[in-house]
Amino acid sequence: MTQILFSKMQGIGNDFVVMDDRDGSIEAAMPYPQLAEKLCDRHFGIGADGIILVKDSEDEDHDIRFVIYNSDGSRADMCGNGMRCFAKYLYEKNIIDKKQIRVQTDAGTVVPEVVADASGRVTSVKVDMGPPVMSCRQVPFVCDKDTAVEASVDMADGSTVTVTAVGMGNPHAVVFVKDLSEVDVAAQGRALEIHPRFPAKTNVEFIQVMDDQTLKMKVWERGAGMTLACGTGACAALTAAHITGRTGNYATVVLDGGDLAIFWDKSTNHLIKTGPARLVFEGVIRVSAGNGADTEF
Amino acid sequence: MTQILFSKMQGIGNDFVVMDDRDGSIEAAMPYPQLAEKLCDRHFGIGADGIILVKDSEDEDHDIRFVIYNSDGSRADMCGNGMRCFAKYLYEKNIIDKKQIRVQTDAGTVVPEVVADASGRVTSVKVDMGPPVMSCRQVPFVCDKDTAVEASVDMADGSTVTVTAVGMGNPHAVVFVKDLSEVDVAAQGRALEIHPRFPAKTNVEFIQVMDDQTLKMKVWERGAGMTLACGTGACAALTAAHITGRTGNYATVVLDGGDLAIFWDKSTNHLIKTGPARLVFEGVIRVSAGNGADTEF
Repeated sequence: MTQILFSKMQGIGNDFVVMDDRDGSIEAAMPYPQLAEKLCDRHFGIGADGIILVKDSEDEDHDIRFVIYNSDGSRADMCGNGMRCFAKYLYEKNIIDKKQIRVQTDAGTVVPEVVADASGRVTSVKVDMGPPVMSCRQVPFVCDKDTAVEASVDMADGSTVTVTAVGMGNPHAVVFVKDLSEVDVAAQGRALEIHPRFPAKTNVEFIQVMDDQTLKMKVWERGAGMTLACGTGACAALTAAHITGRTGNYATVVLDGGDLAIFWDKSTNHLIKTGPARLVFEGVIRVSAGNGADTEF
Repeated sequence: MTQILFSKMQGIGNDFVVMDDRDGSIEAAMPYPQLAEKLCDRHFGIGADGIILVKDSEDEDHDIRFVIYNSDGSRADMCGNGMRCFAKYLYEKNIIDKKQIRVQTDAGTVVPEVVADASGRVTSVKVDMGPPVMSCRQVPFVCDKDTAVEASVDMADGSTVTVTAVGMGNPHAVVFVKDLSEVDVAAQGRALEIHPRFPAKTNVEFIQVMDDQTLKMKVWERGAGMTLACGTGACAALTAAHITGRTGNYATVVLDGGDLAIFWDKSTNHLIKTGPARLVFEGVIRVSAGNGADTEF
């Protein structure tokens, strides 16, 4: 029987069980895929979208290693919302005593930077999301110009949609609208996702400009459909809004799950995303790899 | 800011946040309806079907008082699954140091009895459910006899259903079937629930006899529809099974959410229900009645 201390955390509604397994005792008690399924069950377990493990990094270039499993027991590469929770956990638990943390993930190096108040409590976390890619060939988007800013796309139903194509490691089609409440996100999102001019398919962001510092966004994620939030989508939205003169190089992007602040640092050309991470509660749970006779869970 | 210690518990899949508020500090921090809504949220809170508070009893006839709120903030009278978790909590936390506990609830006195192993861990909890009522007038069920054991009920679609009518403080129609997997619980349950021969409507239990000590049950609850489990329904099922010679005066009732053991004590004519209660995890959460500036939740 192993007693596991955990923090239940969430970032814009995406929730995680975060645990320190640098000594390997948790994995020894139960393999991570099985642990994820058990702990993430919302009636018989703790309930979460995934579990995040703190592990020692495997090289000297990183301070720490981020390991994440989905609620179905599958392994994920990276997750922006999870990374913010992870950074807050590391800083507040004094596992790492600096604000910029070099994190090893299955998707490469990520460097979150915690924003802490006077008492040392982390209120939000910044992540450098890299430069936006405007080249149509790289997005990829089929176009007769090098870049696609407010390009017209002919839809199968005879309508035309104006999109700005942005790459953020994944493809995005940003569509500005007058009134988000009138958009059929599922129908239009799906139609653009699989449009032949996006040969790798695309994420789709519908954006209503609230003022020159606020964008309201609904997102259709490639392969996932409608979701509460999408970090790379928020970056693509600010890029498109700034390029088309709708905002400056900074805006708050209001998503269904919460707000992300996006800053386009012109000195580096990188997009900096700042978002919330919250501690919901801390707990202890006993797990057993055996027949469960000594644990109730 | 108030720090609340809690136990997350479940009984056959019905889950609760259990807290000791005998000193009133929790209610002072936040009124219970609001607390229930916040804590029960499965993404932004702890996640549960309800919250249960330990309170001092208001008279000398009771050891303790049981207060329960649903996840929507509404107050409930009683809950069998919640009561078992409550009794386990009281015994394991040494709040009450006897096995039979006289509990004050909004629905009157309930006397759970904990079943503990050698280490003092509570594995299950017994509750005296009182005597079954067979009188048709009391169930109530419209019938030309005093009791309705395997009575034929004509349905609107021209079919006939054989029911045994049992009262357990609420009405039950027990229907024995050859194969539960072939029953359309929703359609048949709804049709019986509102049948004119049940003037107060009825709960409906579909029972497949597995052997003379095991009943498999699917339930349609009056006003609630299909649910994972129903304690009074399991009592009605054993009553009907015993009266019709299908089982002795004891059986395990296998429900979708777990098992309940029902014993009909012929010396008192009372039904004794024994069911599981599990501790999933223990935790601490910080709540604030104010603007939340000093709490993240």
